[in-house]
Amino acid sequence: MRTMVEYISMSRKADTTPIITLLTDFGLTDPYVGVMKGVILGIVPEATLVDLTHDIPAQDVGCAAFVLSTAIDYFPPGTIHVIVVDPGVGSQRRPIAVKTDQAFFVAPDNGVLTLALVRQPPTEIVHLTNPAYWLPEVSTTFHGRDIFAPVAAHLARGVPITDLGTPIREIVYLPARVPTQDADGKTLGEIQHIDRFGNCITNIPASMLDPNISLIVKVAGQSIPGISSTYATVEPGAPVALIGSSGFLEIAIRNGNAAEQFSIEVGDPVVIEPQ
Amino acid sequence: MRTMVEYISMSRKADTTPIITLLTDFGLTDPYVGVMKGVILGIVPEATLVDLTHDIPAQDVGCAAFVLSTAIDYFPPGTIHVIVVDPGVGSQRRPIAVKTDQAFFVAPDNGVLTLALVRQPPTEIVHLTNPAYWLPEVSTTFHGRDIFAPVAAHLARGVPITDLGTPIREIVYLPARVPTQDADGKTLGEIQHIDRFGNCITNIPASMLDPNISLIVKVAGQSIPGISSTYATVEPGAPVALIGSSGFLEIAIRNGNAAEQFSIEVGDPVVIEPQ
Amino acid sequence: MRTMVEYISMSRKADTTPIITLLTDFGLTDPYVGVMKGVILGIVPEATLVDLTHDIPAQDVGCAAFVLSTAIDYFPPGTIHVIVVDPGVGSQRRPIAVKTDQAFFVAPDNGVLTLALVRQPPTEIVHLTNPAYWLPEVSTTFHGRDIFAPVAAHLARGVPITDLGTPIREIVYLPARVPTQDADGKTLGEIQHIDRFGNCITNIPASMLDPNISLIVKVAGQSIPGISSTYATVEPGAPVALIGSSGFLEIAIRNGNAAEQFSIEVGDPVVIEPQ
Repeated sequence: MRTMVEYISMSRKADTTPIITLLTDFGLTDPYVGVMKGVILGIVPEATLVDLTHDIPAQDVGCAAFVLSTAIDYFPPGTIHVIVVDPGVGSQRRPIAVKTDQAFFVAPDNGVLTLALVRQPPTEIVHLTNPAYWLPEVSTTFHGRDIFAPVAAHLARGVPITDLGTPIREIVYLPARVPTQDADGKTLGEIQHIDRFGNCITNIPASMLDPNISLIVKVAGQSIPGISSTYATVEPGAPVALIGSSGFLEIAIRNGNAAEQFSIEVGDPVVIEPQ
Repeated sequence: MRTMVEYISMSRKADTTPIITLLTDFGLTDPYVGVMKGVILGIVPEATLVDLTHDIPAQDVGCAAFVLSTAIDYFPPGTIHVIVVDPGVGSQRRPIAVKTDQAFFVAPDNGVLTLALVRQPPTEIVHLTNPAYWLPEVSTTFHGRDIFAPVAAHLARGVPITDLGTPIREIVYLPARVPTQDADGKTLGEIQHIDRFGNCITNIPASMLDPNISLIVKVAGQSIPGISSTYATVEPGAPVALIGSSGFLEIAIRNGNAAEQFSIEVGDPVVIEPQ
Repeated sequence: MRTMVEYISMSRKADTTPIITLLTDFGLTDPYVGVMKGVILGIVPEATLVDLTHDIPAQDVGCAAFVLSTAIDYFPPGTIHVIVVDPGVGSQRRPIAVKTDQAFFVAPDNGVLTLALVRQPPTEIVHLTNPAYWLPEVSTTFHGRDIFAPVAAHLARGVPITDLGTPIREIVYLPARVPTQDADGKTLGEIQHIDRFGNCITNIPASMLDPNISLIVKVAGQSIPGISSTYATVEPGAPVALIGSSGFLEIAIRNGNAAEQFSIEVGDPVVIEPQ
């Protein structure tokens, strides 16, 4: 079967507008995102801009890392992802650009790329040290505008990543929070994200679950029998465990809000046992 | 007088970028909308994407139906509208595409097109059954990404609607909630939408109101005399009934919030009587 | 040193897509913004649309004026800014278009351009009186859709501003709220904006603060010693006064929310004294 990326590559023309995605914790109440777009379009007017989200909780690098990792496989090759969730802005944390076989990433070096680079391993990493590709004045508080946006725009224009600064090999990674499995087939994971519908996404990938064994999912004092194939296998209002759209086990309530009803929070433990 | 659509057609060049609009209940906190855009741009990089709104209350098909119907007349011919408010995702509800003289619609067959197709009657309807135009892997929970987005992108590329699946004639329509009028000229309707300003939009079109008769509008225990031509005919803070921008009678408070002040909710009855 | 605008001009091609920015208080829950984009793209399909923000508090002209003024310098020459924060819609307030050396502005004449036109003085002002450039039907409640959007689109197509209506010289300006400084070097200003991070932006520009004198910032019963160069000069959780990204003195808490913690509101007085 063709992969998503092969599929998209086939249907995409060779010489098309570069896509630049933006992922921040800036919200949409202030004009910060609009300003970044103004800077980018001033440099590369033909860019196509896509917002991933700007509602990452303020300075929540872990949340941004997860959200980014679920989105990148759906963008065509050559897409430039700009991530500005940057509690260390103005400190010594490094601004970086990373090239993979599929994409470019422009971000602060604070671990926000951790999960994305598991899916798309880096082929080149550059510490952004060349001010020729920044705005002429760089503030201490808004590198999204002054460094990350113009660097992404210059990448979109075709500037080689190596012109942007100094090659480096080590960057910051977040501590891995991987699920474990014991000999009895008991799997221990945790909730890694809650979406707007209150669906609770675990860190347990489909590949860890044996489809031939009847399983029970335990979370927040609830026991949910079986892994369903779709929300619609249960009655409206009933809880359901299924493989969600990002490939992880997910706890939901059909036409309801599982996080609210069961008081589930990010980090809560999830146990899966044979029934 | 030229209609809006004739006006826009005149000024629009023949061979321009297709517009794809997106209307969902996904919110903007998760990257779901961004991911749909990635999928679309991977297939049709020259598409112009416009968000109608992503803040439809979760799974509120009726709200989405109204919002869609107020927007479509303002887009140029050939626009492709993608609507993903889809409580039945993963069940047997059909994904469909609809062609009208003005536009294409790509949506689940759950009634969300009801009011749009009153304004723009369907000329062709297709049950989306051809997986050649979907992503190669289709999840059970995110057809917006896996079916609706790629189908819209292929329509934008010029794929004939008939290639997308099986022609059908019957689709789901929401029950009509039309206002009634008795012999005395008394009109009974209801609130069908409340906007961010707290303006309360009824389902009573301007055409049902005789401009030569002095009328009184009754809603939520309030009696508002007269149909005004603009907010500015009353003092700031005063209630006003007027024909709103979508062509329906609307109850507002000048520079205030009518829904909050009068505790008006969607579905509340509205009575209009001769004064 | 090159200015931002010179920098952007240099890297921008001559004949590129016009940019139209949108700044409103419409929110994103209703489709009003999407509808304006439909109208614009119907007239000028090649336009690039950028949202500045749509979350201006309802009818808060002063907030919109500030937000606009912080954004415009980051857009390339020729950008068309559309501002619809319009409590007087349907009244006698005039719709206007303004040309500066850098940009066009299309807005109601209610003072919303006050701070923008301090940065970019007007070279031409036109009262929009020519309905040939409006939608054929003009509502009394949604001039954003019926007048401002189509006028901006026609400007983007190259229609001369003078074709849009009657040249005028006087427009509405908001009362100036400028900071004052006494002979002792004591500066009195106020909070003019609070952003999503709870950062409190004063109306005191960097140029009023002598970098050679040790200063203390007093606001909301707090005394913050010294003007820092970056958030990172203080410990997480500690208050900091610094020059923010828009060039004004700003009160923040590192990795925290100053507005919430100190109960600071827009309009609160700020005093800066030698230490």
